[in-house]
Amino acid sequence: MKQRIALFAGSFDPFTKGHEDVVRRALPLFDKIIIGIGENSQKKRFFALDFMIDKIKTCFATESKVEVCSYKGLTVKYALSRNAHFLLRGLRNGDDLNYEFPISQANRELNPQLETIFMLTSAHYAYISSTIVRELHKHGEDVSRFLPYTLA
Amino acid sequence: MKQRIALFAGSFDPFTKGHEDVVRRALPLFDKIIIGIGENSQKKRFFALDFMIDKIKTCFATESKVEVCSYKGLTVKYALSRNAHFLLRGLRNGDDLNYEFPISQANRELNPQLETIFMLTSAHYAYISSTIVRELHKHGEDVSRFLPYTLA
Amino acid sequence: MKQRIALFAGSFDPFTKGHEDVVRRALPLFDKIIIGIGENSQKKRFFALDFMIDKIKTCFATESKVEVCSYKGLTVKYALSRNAHFLLRGLRNGDDLNYEFPISQANRELNPQLETIFMLTSAHYAYISSTIVRELHKHGEDVSRFLPYTLA
Amino acid sequence: MKQRIALFAGSFDPFTKGHEDVVRRALPLFDKIIIGIGENSQKKRFFALDFMIDKIKTCFATESKVEVCSYKGLTVKYALSRNAHFLLRGLRNGDDLNYEFPISQANRELNPQLETIFMLTSAHYAYISSTIVRELHKHGEDVSRFLPYTLA
Amino acid sequence: MKQRIALFAGSFDPFTKGHEDVVRRALPLFDKIIIGIGENSQKKRFFALDFMIDKIKTCFATESKVEVCSYKGLTVKYALSRNAHFLLRGLRNGDDLNYEFPISQANRELNPQLETIFMLTSAHYAYISSTIVRELHKHGEDVSRFLPYTLA
Amino acid sequence: MKQRIALFAGSFDPFTKGHEDVVRRALPLFDKIIIGIGENSQKKRFFALDFMIDKIKTCFATESKVEVCSYKGLTVKYALSRNAHFLLRGLRNGDDLNYEFPISQANRELNPQLETIFMLTSAHYAYISSTIVRELHKHGEDVSRFLPYTLA
Repeated sequence: MKQRIALFAGSFDPFTKGHEDVVRRALPLFDKIIIGIGENSQKKRFFALDFMIDKIKTCFATESKVEVCSYKGLTVKYALSRNAHFLLRGLRNGDDLNYEFPISQANRELNPQLETIFMLTSAHYAYISSTIVRELHKHGEDVSRFLPYTLA
Repeated sequence: MKQRIALFAGSFDPFTKGHEDVVRRALPLFDKIIIGIGENSQKKRFFALDFMIDKIKTCFATESKVEVCSYKGLTVKYALSRNAHFLLRGLRNGDDLNYEFPISQANRELNPQLETIFMLTSAHYAYISSTIVRELHKHGEDVSRFLPYTLA
Repeated sequence: MKQRIALFAGSFDPFTKGHEDVVRRALPLFDKIIIGIGENSQKKRFFALDFMIDKIKTCFATESKVEVCSYKGLTVKYALSRNAHFLLRGLRNGDDLNYEFPISQANRELNPQLETIFMLTSAHYAYISSTIVRELHKHGEDVSRFLPYTLA
Repeated sequence: MKQRIALFAGSFDPFTKGHEDVVRRALPLFDKIIIGIGENSQKKRFFALDFMIDKIKTCFATESKVEVCSYKGLTVKYALSRNAHFLLRGLRNGDDLNYEFPISQANRELNPQLETIFMLTSAHYAYISSTIVRELHKHGEDVSRFLPYTLA
Repeated sequence: MKQRIALFAGSFDPFTKGHEDVVRRALPLFDKIIIGIGENSQKKRFFALDFMIDKIKTCFATESKVEVCSYKGLTVKYALSRNAHFLLRGLRNGDDLNYEFPISQANRELNPQLETIFMLTSAHYAYISSTIVRELHKHGEDVSRFLPYTLA
Repeated sequence: MKQRIALFAGSFDPFTKGHEDVVRRALPLFDKIIIGIGENSQKKRFFALDFMIDKIKTCFATESKVEVCSYKGLTVKYALSRNAHFLLRGLRNGDDLNYEFPISQANRELNPQLETIFMLTSAHYAYISSTIVRELHKHGEDVSRFLPYTLA
């Protein structure tokens, strides 16, 4: 039987407990989940790419079905190049979906063999966004409660 | 390996091309999809339960992974009684999600072993709701273009 | 040249200053606006149909382009029977649109020659809904400030 | 100095931990909070009025600033009759606000001396609605984790 | 009788099948539709202004009621300078409207003689945005299915 | 009794009649309202900081409970440094709330002793945003009707 491979793509700047929660809950559904950090030359990262890849790897060190890596170019193309026929997305609220909707529809028009699968972020993590965590961290706040690894 | 069984629950009064689209696109993800019509003694159906079960069965006659049936009581309990650890839901827009969100969160609190999986309705079917189809049919309009089976 | 006729349909129970505002602002766009009260045998009115037709007529007594009447059956069919190729709708906010969207799309599928035209309710009237006015009136409140006619 | 009195009105069928959370967090802001259950002769309650009043009273037994009672008629009128110049409302998401917005604006037009004050429901309780709790309870589920008192 | 002239303004970077759809469906309502590309010195275009004007002109080559041009400054002022008393806007969903609402209201306060007229984008085009098309094109994808003209 | 101090924070570029409306209506609820302009070194202001502070001060010249000042760093930290246990926020619609929700929840996690209090902007001012006023002013429009002070 064909393997069910999902790509969980994002900038993960940083990867939060909300992201981790979605991956862990999605694991029973897939044979493999690739956590892919999209490299965007135009957008400067706050947390370095290699640093973040290492941190995410420590979260899933004992989880053989998870792979962490970075990629360039269109998410859709990377997914298919990796034989991933599912894009995994976490939703925090209806606004998130309104944003995802046209992207997901365009993806399907261009690649009918690729499906986007949505899971809801747990209520306890729904308010955590990378933007807020980054902003708090910049101002010297302790953000360890929002992250599934230690920053130091 | 454990089977991946999903319950696609609803009143399906009637089952539309939008519903069919979600089931067909979700099939590669699951080993089995149970299409379950919830019986609600307080809400009178427009299309009879047995009639609709038959119609849905004809849509998926050649699809061995699909089962069609009805159930009573809480959706969550029925899912677990059938060994289904995934609830499959179609989303047409952000409003749909705002409606689904608290239900899905409450379900998870009560049954952590049950996950809700969302897929977007295709753009071509997103405007079709059972309510609108029912209303048009009541007024004598031909609604065959919205249904994946013939009503006669 | 073909006449531009619009149907402004609703239950208008009651017709409010918000409704009047939309009609007056739409007048320059159309050659005729039919204000149509849909009769729904299953839903009991609070303000009698004939009473409300009379009240609306007094609002537009000097406006030759406005016609007020009631109709039965599907709005879309009534519009076409009256040679109206435009449905006029007022929007108070994004929620209103999410509600209107699937209805409007289904209408277009069934009747491509019929277009729905939306105008925003003025900020000063956007909070006025028939439901709220009706509720206040039931409790003996003076609602004259919300209506473009006197109730007595 | 004038007392700051708030009315926290609702049907509270039942009163949940989400409701309790809003009241407790609002207490520092007000000199008194009246928890008022609106009696609506047209809508049958699931949990009896007196039963619910008693349960809410037990939650706030040691809190002298909280009063629990029922009222008839318009919420706005009852508030003013009790010298309450603030309506306290909990918001779970943007949809809740879209619902509250026109009601609040109409209230202000009719009673400029009355302000609606909104607080967000805590993330941990945002998915709990009376409707969901009632539905679960009807089906024999244990809903004690959603309530700040015991049902028995 | 006064001419009904509408301005359909945007950056159209690029003009998509969704935009074309709105213009074509609005044509029966107006005597003239001016498609105006707003020049914004602070925002660099991806598709050159003159290139895009030419492409849009080819779409409507046989449509005498359509004019294509560019303009500087406030949209509202340009509209009135061209004797256009209607701004035509396409809506893809409720989010679009929430964005348009305050702009439209401010325009009306400043220019009561100018009305914004909204039409819904057809379901088949609702997921197409200039941003997505641009992004796909940058990555070398074939976007011809989203455009009403050939890019080459 | 402990003083009820609120911080009304924003960039106020410029402070509008909508902002003034929220402050005036919130005054009965608090013993003191600090209007704080957050300084952000990365975001260039259109209206100079000192100029705007002066203008806001003139609006509330006779209101002893209002203080106007600027601050650097996290809003939450500044609030607590000023002994303000309430953040006052105006909401214009449900979208505003969806934006405020995660920020408010994160604030509460980090500072449980700080509550965010929301009030709705009056219908008459709900369409006024600093962005729109700034844009109109840049294009030479007279924006005095949107501001509670004279710009000259």
